[in-house]
Amino acid sequence: MLKRIHHVGIVVSKLDDAYRFWRDALGLPVTKEATIEDQGVRAALLKIGDSEIELLEPLNPENGIGKFLAKRGGGLHHVCFETDDVARELDAAKQKAIPLIDQAPRKGLAGMICFLHPKATRGVLVEYAQPLDEH
Amino acid sequence: MLKRIHHVGIVVSKLDDAYRFWRDALGLPVTKEATIEDQGVRAALLKIGDSEIELLEPLNPENGIGKFLAKRGGGLHHVCFETDDVARELDAAKQKAIPLIDQAPRKGLAGMICFLHPKATRGVLVEYAQPLDEH
Repeated sequence: MLKRIHHVGIVVSKLDDAYRFWRDALGLPVTKEATIEDQGVRAALLKIGDSEIELLEPLNPENGIGKFLAKRGGGLHHVCFETDDVARELDAAKQKAIPLIDQAPRKGLAGMICFLHPKATRGVLVEYAQPLDEH
Repeated sequence: MLKRIHHVGIVVSKLDDAYRFWRDALGLPVTKEATIEDQGVRAALLKIGDSEIELLEPLNPENGIGKFLAKRGGGLHHVCFETDDVARELDAAKQKAIPLIDQAPRKGLAGMICFLHPKATRGVLVEYAQPLDEH
């Protein structure tokens, strides 16, 4: 079962420029910033209630985030729903024949994650995330 | 102060088609469906935790939602943050010289609302909403 909106992913040209609006003007606190080499992004999470805004800066213009930036100039990229069992959600999606990007959960900034294919929803990229305990 | 993600707005071709994914496959319950004549949309809200997914079907191809659908084939359209005083948030935005679409709060599906201009954020349309009591 999907519990809440975990985050909304937004592609930006530069994190530092994006902070001027999301952190400084809107007042959302940055809770995490990390480079995710295998996804080719520098990412930041900003807290809003029980959810987050995820800012994604591509590290090169050739990956998916880089191409999105080049094509659209940045903007809303995906919506991520939290679950307490991402593997179970993925199995349920398979049983419903929902097109997938990931056939198995993998580690991402939000924990164990997977992406459904945007053709499932006519253009909306949907992510599932199961946060990992951070003690 | 912004309290939470109130909803994520998604443009769709037909609500009934979109329900097959968002309601039937993902299991999100529809909590409201309404025609908003002055915005030229048929809209639905689907509950996810303390937030909602807002599906927007244009009533004609000439308005903003209709043009978005024609240009992009639908998809993520805006993100809405809840506040308990939308007029105060709007004043704060004006003082920070954030470009606006609405100069004053107006009534929308989510209560009293206003939109910031996407040029404020390099392409992300941001809405503020103050839900109205519904007794």
